[in-house]
Amino acid sequence: MVVMIRPVKRKVKGPEGQEDMPYLLTPGPLTTSRSVKFAMLADWGSWDQELKFIVADIRRRLMKLAGCDGSYSCVVMQGSGTFAVEAALGSFAPTGRRKMLMISNGAYGERAIQIMERLNRPYAVLRYADQEKPKLADIEQTMDEDPGIASVFLVHCETTSGLVNPMRDITAAVKKRGCCLILDAMSSFGAIPIETTALGIDVLISSANKCIQGVPGFSFVLCRSDVLKESKGRCHSLSLDLHDQWQYMEKTGQFRFTPPTHCLVAFYQALKEHEKEGGIAGRLARYVRNRDTLLAGMRRLGFHTLLAPEDSGPIIQTFLTPRDRKFDFQRFYDGLKSRGFVIYPGKLTKRPSFRIGNIGHIDPKVMQALVEAVRDALRDMGVRDMTPAPAED
Amino acid sequence: MVVMIRPVKRKVKGPEGQEDMPYLLTPGPLTTSRSVKFAMLADWGSWDQELKFIVADIRRRLMKLAGCDGSYSCVVMQGSGTFAVEAALGSFAPTGRRKMLMISNGAYGERAIQIMERLNRPYAVLRYADQEKPKLADIEQTMDEDPGIASVFLVHCETTSGLVNPMRDITAAVKKRGCCLILDAMSSFGAIPIETTALGIDVLISSANKCIQGVPGFSFVLCRSDVLKESKGRCHSLSLDLHDQWQYMEKTGQFRFTPPTHCLVAFYQALKEHEKEGGIAGRLARYVRNRDTLLAGMRRLGFHTLLAPEDSGPIIQTFLTPRDRKFDFQRFYDGLKSRGFVIYPGKLTKRPSFRIGNIGHIDPKVMQALVEAVRDALRDMGVRDMTPAPAED
Repeated sequence: MVVMIRPVKRKVKGPEGQEDMPYLLTPGPLTTSRSVKFAMLADWGSWDQELKFIVADIRRRLMKLAGCDGSYSCVVMQGSGTFAVEAALGSFAPTGRRKMLMISNGAYGERAIQIMERLNRPYAVLRYADQEKPKLADIEQTMDEDPGIASVFLVHCETTSGLVNPMRDITAAVKKRGCCLILDAMSSFGAIPIETTALGIDVLISSANKCIQGVPGFSFVLCRSDVLKESKGRCHSLSLDLHDQWQYMEKTGQFRFTPPTHCLVAFYQALKEHEKEGGIAGRLARYVRNRDTLLAGMRRLGFHTLLAPEDSGPIIQTFLTPRDRKFDFQRFYDGLKSRGFVIYPGKLTKRPSFRIGNIGHIDPKVMQALVEAVRDALRDMGVRDMTPAPAED
Repeated sequence: MVVMIRPVKRKVKGPEGQEDMPYLLTPGPLTTSRSVKFAMLADWGSWDQELKFIVADIRRRLMKLAGCDGSYSCVVMQGSGTFAVEAALGSFAPTGRRKMLMISNGAYGERAIQIMERLNRPYAVLRYADQEKPKLADIEQTMDEDPGIASVFLVHCETTSGLVNPMRDITAAVKKRGCCLILDAMSSFGAIPIETTALGIDVLISSANKCIQGVPGFSFVLCRSDVLKESKGRCHSLSLDLHDQWQYMEKTGQFRFTPPTHCLVAFYQALKEHEKEGGIAGRLARYVRNRDTLLAGMRRLGFHTLLAPEDSGPIIQTFLTPRDRKFDFQRFYDGLKSRGFVIYPGKLTKRPSFRIGNIGHIDPKVMQALVEAVRDALRDMGVRDMTPAPAED
């Protein structure tokens, strides 16, 4: 079989160095810089000194970015972000009579619950609608009424909607009650400041191909070293055992099992570029400009967003599908792609929607060009009625 | 911290396009072609049609290479080879009164046993020394005496030593008894012919960064679709669940969780280059020439191999460390590295040794240059007595 890539006529050139490829306006894998990809043009030995230096420096830089002091450690784990979430739950979720409170307002909260089901670990759930923020009072009440709750799992930015959950307030409430907080900061880490030690977050999970702008292939967990020590022998999986991975890496500087060497060196380059952009503050500023350009343009075209302006985080935006029968998502997607942009389908449980990411190696000019492409795609389909389609039962 | 890469004076240029990097003479990650790495210079959307085509074609090509008919399926899994071994054991190892027979003659057999321990699944073990082939009579006797044995796990080429186990005879004995055979073909697949359907192998596991010459980041499992169907709900892990990964991929063409997109497109290019070289036969022929050049040269220098010539497979060679006190492995390693070659430490349980891989994008000229570098490194250390060092207790 021959893979055919349709030739496209574009007003917009693709990213530098890959002018014939579309911009990825998704929550990741996203558009990375040319220099990040160039870092993959060499083969590194997994046992070799230089790669050990690189891995050690990656771990050190991640600790610094997360505001972790010496009582924390960084464990890098092969696989996607979900592999690291499962590794963290398998290593840290309580067993026996103690349980974990799972806070969910989207697909990623639900996925963590699915992992707890698979692990057969005890848990309680506080569930909210996709566009709803978890309520602090509910969390406090649930914890106060159920003394069995020993840990809390929270998604920082729910990529389902783009909503940034009130992590600071929830963390304070959890720590006040002496419980362990596991934060899934997959799509927020690197763009939204998280003072891990200062806030008392016990475990923070994120991935290579989000706001640090690396390529997909591994994820990482920052956690208190005493929590790691306690987890010895508790993980259900050998491959995903964070304690064993940590111990081996501390002793040898290597991974227990073959690491994705090319992804690691790409990430190392991405970390340097993150620093050069001004760290978290610099990156956040660009993402906010991207978001503002996108939202203003899409609203001018008549689109409605799932979230109120004050709730739309700096990562990804959810737009409600117009009710106009001429609007066909696949045609819309293809129309945008032929113009040089890949967007993302919706993941809401009830309302027809689609998503556009504003993270990655892109700037407001790209967002502006996307808005023009959206305008042209709507015109091609003849869409006029931009009123949001009703919720599906 | 700044990573310092020592400048080196070399007679040999590194691989094309990375002239300042050493050749990786390891069991993987290995030296890949320039074009395989160039394939990573673009960002692909994980949800997009083209990547779906590529993934579908990768799966189709792997099935063809393994001689699988339509009753088999290919499941791609994120992470290193060990992740796929754990996925296969978690999905297919029997529970209850039935058990799996683990055949082990090296570190990779032992690792599979470690996974069975972690999964708490019932198993029996037949264990051999590193340089010893599993004996067919032992296997037949064990299976005949224990009717609880329902499956057998076998490593095809034990990378610990380089030994190629008598897979055909063992498979025939297992299938004659109506049992399931799981073959860890990590370092053999793509270079040693395996007629999966014809031999009746139920499950075959391998990885991207071995004889297909891709970059590390994922692995894959080829297995009978009815065995996959039966495994529904049996895996201990959500991330590593082969059944769920398979079903989702069949339905959507996508991965359940973010795939290593760059590694996938690199592998796709590697598969095309494998075909161009003449498939398995062509690749095997080159690896055999590499091995023969390496073994002849090293023997001329006085080195002894762990295995008899007729047992040394075409993948990696184990050399016994000389007893000369002037031989220091780290100095030897560094001496070879400064000359442009990365070799691999030994992994034998008893005898001091080191390993040199003969797989990857390398040819007999590279092996010849390595032998000269070994000669020079020995001379620098003043090593004269090449008699192998005795076994350690």
